[in-house]
Amino acid sequence: MSRPFNFSAGPSALPIDVLLQVRDELLDFAGTGVSVMEISHRSQPFMDFAHATDAAVRRVLAVPSDYHVLLLQGGSYLQFSQIPMNLFHKTNTADYIHTGLWSEQAANAARQYGIVRTIASSHETGFDRVPEINESHINLDAAYLHYTENETAQGLQFSKPPISSIPLVCDACSSLMSKPIDIAAHDLVYASAQKNMGIAGVTLVLLNPAILDKPLAATPQALDFSIQAKKQSLLNTPSTFSWYVMGLMMEWIERTGGIEVLHEINKKKSRHLYNVIDGSNGFYINHVLPDYRSINNVPFHISERNLEDLFVREAQENGFHGLKGHQSTGGLRASIYNAVTLDAVQELALFMREFARTHG
Amino acid sequence: MSRPFNFSAGPSALPIDVLLQVRDELLDFAGTGVSVMEISHRSQPFMDFAHATDAAVRRVLAVPSDYHVLLLQGGSYLQFSQIPMNLFHKTNTADYIHTGLWSEQAANAARQYGIVRTIASSHETGFDRVPEINESHINLDAAYLHYTENETAQGLQFSKPPISSIPLVCDACSSLMSKPIDIAAHDLVYASAQKNMGIAGVTLVLLNPAILDKPLAATPQALDFSIQAKKQSLLNTPSTFSWYVMGLMMEWIERTGGIEVLHEINKKKSRHLYNVIDGSNGFYINHVLPDYRSINNVPFHISERNLEDLFVREAQENGFHGLKGHQSTGGLRASIYNAVTLDAVQELALFMREFARTHG
Repeated sequence: MSRPFNFSAGPSALPIDVLLQVRDELLDFAGTGVSVMEISHRSQPFMDFAHATDAAVRRVLAVPSDYHVLLLQGGSYLQFSQIPMNLFHKTNTADYIHTGLWSEQAANAARQYGIVRTIASSHETGFDRVPEINESHINLDAAYLHYTENETAQGLQFSKPPISSIPLVCDACSSLMSKPIDIAAHDLVYASAQKNMGIAGVTLVLLNPAILDKPLAATPQALDFSIQAKKQSLLNTPSTFSWYVMGLMMEWIERTGGIEVLHEINKKKSRHLYNVIDGSNGFYINHVLPDYRSINNVPFHISERNLEDLFVREAQENGFHGLKGHQSTGGLRASIYNAVTLDAVQELALFMREFARTHG
Repeated sequence: MSRPFNFSAGPSALPIDVLLQVRDELLDFAGTGVSVMEISHRSQPFMDFAHATDAAVRRVLAVPSDYHVLLLQGGSYLQFSQIPMNLFHKTNTADYIHTGLWSEQAANAARQYGIVRTIASSHETGFDRVPEINESHINLDAAYLHYTENETAQGLQFSKPPISSIPLVCDACSSLMSKPIDIAAHDLVYASAQKNMGIAGVTLVLLNPAILDKPLAATPQALDFSIQAKKQSLLNTPSTFSWYVMGLMMEWIERTGGIEVLHEINKKKSRHLYNVIDGSNGFYINHVLPDYRSINNVPFHISERNLEDLFVREAQENGFHGLKGHQSTGGLRASIYNAVTLDAVQELALFMREFARTHG
């Protein structure tokens, strides 16, 4: 079967095995004779599946046993508001690390609910690195320290979590399940599924119950972490199909060998593309310092900017899908999440070399 | 193909045509060569589909042209909070009509944001009717009057919207698209898709922009109707697959002949079941007065309550799925939304008659 190579930034490629499984059992979920789309979220077959998904998430990510595993609606974007609404109880201030577009959006959303202090930023160096974090800059009275593990637009990634003396919150939207992340080193980690672990409609929130207390008065019940935890994320009807695909992705991740194995493949994939960029004699440009380059999103420019549209067009004609950069940065970008194969990346690397040769 | 008869209250049955279409094009959406689950919500093929869905909703429901058509995440349950958050700007009071479980939950959620007055209730008569609404009881200083068009647990339904001198808000979660509802007579109508028009993960909100103003200060951007309207419901990644299935359902509804045709079928379906109940010499009980009985959900008890578990078990063995009543009311319930065929209802009617004959 010949399918386009899909480098979309999210919603993004799914493993062909998972797609075929969805198709195969689309009319008959778990022997019920009806589609997973057609059954109640409170029915036994769905609840059994939900419990299996919870257990798989805990296994794959080594989630501390007392942490809540929530599958919520609204995307990471809603978490930008939901997190301060839930965590601004003793104090309504938080510290944020600024590394690009998404950490900035998260901070802006939190500002609606209190005082947000940017304790470190790589803005001045054009987001070419994770800024140095001086522990003494962390405000001990802040409710939490927030960082964005991987910036999808800038292609900038943390190699390890910052050391924090206050609760640590991580937006791992584009990297969770693609590399080992020490959940126990965090108090809250969140990620929507449509990058490395499924499709849009479900957002995973892993959280330490010790940081919870009464949320802000205006917090809707559906956005109250404690209530959702008590209801096992089934306060009301979730996006059941999205949940189901995430469950299948957990099975796929375990079949593939788990996150360490995926991490090795993902590193190799990104190395291929950075090698092409760095070996192009300046035809392709990625200005992130090597230590901070993302293994999930490889953004690049062509030194002659007017070739970028042509690149997208020719790529499309050659079966490469989703290579346009984020609207805020322009340029080009290859998102190479878990389901993008090494083969697909090698094909793209060949195409990029050839494009540079003919247009350089 | 032999499939169970699915009377689930939601998520609920889908038309077999729609299921087959989803399966057929699961790996290739709109000629892209990739699955609808794998493409960006900002890609042209998805945007084109979204625009077509918007146009179909407007056609099928005769939505006034200046109204917003929003497809949001979080379910109707989140709307219970989102609506007061958005509409409590000039005043933070609202009037609610109390007809059962869901209108009560909606009112309780609104109470978090202001003063909720119940201006009519059928609680005292055991939710056997829509209460009489005395126009003089409507508070002219209230932001809106809210009612629940169909109560899924009680099986109670409005035959026409209440007359209101203030903005009228309708929870049509379980009835929108199953019968004509005059959208222009309302200022806001909302319904999640998993009953009559799709699957869980997307909630349709139709609203008159004239009632919008600055929402409450704590309203997350993702829950701000004005922002979502400006962004055509694409502020952030929606549950794209749920959106897609809703689009297919709109095509199915139009192919079937539209809402008037569906309404006739739905009335006929419900009549079949009420006839069995009323003709059972008291074996089956539904205490809603005939004028107020729901065409979407037919709840009933067996006079000998201890037969109800047996009924569910025997029904299941005979291929009837999802007949357990809502946990709050107990008993039995057949939800007969758009995708439940007249054939399925006739089979259920036969089964019910036979069950009464052997156990009566």
